[in-house]
Amino acid sequence: MEGAPLKSWQTLSRREIVDAQPWLRVLAEDIQLPDGRVVRDFFTIEAPDYVIIVALTAENVAIVERSYKHGPRAVSLTLPAGYIERGEEPIAAAQRELLEETGYIADSWQRLGAFTVDGNRGCGAAHIYLARGAFRTAEPDHGDLEEMEILFLSLAALREALFRGDVAQLPVAAAIGMAVVSLGPYG
Amino acid sequence: MEGAPLKSWQTLSRREIVDAQPWLRVLAEDIQLPDGRVVRDFFTIEAPDYVIIVALTAENVAIVERSYKHGPRAVSLTLPAGYIERGEEPIAAAQRELLEETGYIADSWQRLGAFTVDGNRGCGAAHIYLARGAFRTAEPDHGDLEEMEILFLSLAALREALFRGDVAQLPVAAAIGMAVVSLGPYG
Repeated sequence: MEGAPLKSWQTLSRREIVDAQPWLRVLAEDIQLPDGRVVRDFFTIEAPDYVIIVALTAENVAIVERSYKHGPRAVSLTLPAGYIERGEEPIAAAQRELLEETGYIADSWQRLGAFTVDGNRGCGAAHIYLARGAFRTAEPDHGDLEEMEILFLSLAALREALFRGDVAQLPVAAAIGMAVVSLGPYG
Repeated sequence: MEGAPLKSWQTLSRREIVDAQPWLRVLAEDIQLPDGRVVRDFFTIEAPDYVIIVALTAENVAIVERSYKHGPRAVSLTLPAGYIERGEEPIAAAQRELLEETGYIADSWQRLGAFTVDGNRGCGAAHIYLARGAFRTAEPDHGDLEEMEILFLSLAALREALFRGDVAQLPVAAAIGMAVVSLGPYG
């Protein structure tokens, strides 16, 4: 990852277009590029960070969901996920969301990474977790707007579902892909 | 993926908040949930679909990029990517972007999937491709706002970079994860 230094863009000014905090804030920025060019009205979207979790039982069975999501406007395979609350640590949000949505807690938690959702506009960050040794301790009580079903899939079935088109959302694809890669096997 | 039918939400009305087409359109929708509840001002973001490509040479060396992106406000490991033009097929956009950004064309192309960027708000879809047998045929000529460097990484190095924090954007994480999974080995 060495190379000549790449320079950041400079924000010259920013103008608020939409203020619907805490859910959404849209800004138009005037930007100066490293070569001196000025770009007007480059849009930035501020949205809350969220967590998304691939949770596996001790038998490596994945606890997944099926629900309607209004972004893709489709019922699809989803994962436990939710917004990080103000002042909450991402790992605490991940543990809270897994418990609320599925009734499961897990023995071990691994942070796979955090990634800005939209490369140009921002739109919050997705914090991806892998939970292992998950076991049921309560009834689900998520309080989300969506109806959801809970499904149990082997890792092979989860991988197949991803490539078969059962997944509709980018963060779900990223979380499944990273979890499967991190679990190996890679010789 | 069987189960009791999950119902779609109904959009009762939509109000345009921002019209900056073709780059961005923000709408506030009034939604009716399947249980009859009405949710006011649920935000929808319309943005162009884009392609993102993991391209490998015949020796399985990945052609990747390093550039500043204003979403994460960071220099990070990125992949050839770009917006799909009006009327353009996603595969044609992927082949165009790979050539423009890297000067490479590829013998074989595989569509790994298309995924809505934001599960709640939409924000366009990412179309992920794996290109194999890539070889250089021209100088890069991308015309993008970003300066970029081209790097060559083995698959092992690409996987390590993903988990080490060198990747800042969700679509890059998803594309690398899916490409590595699709290339196996899985016994």
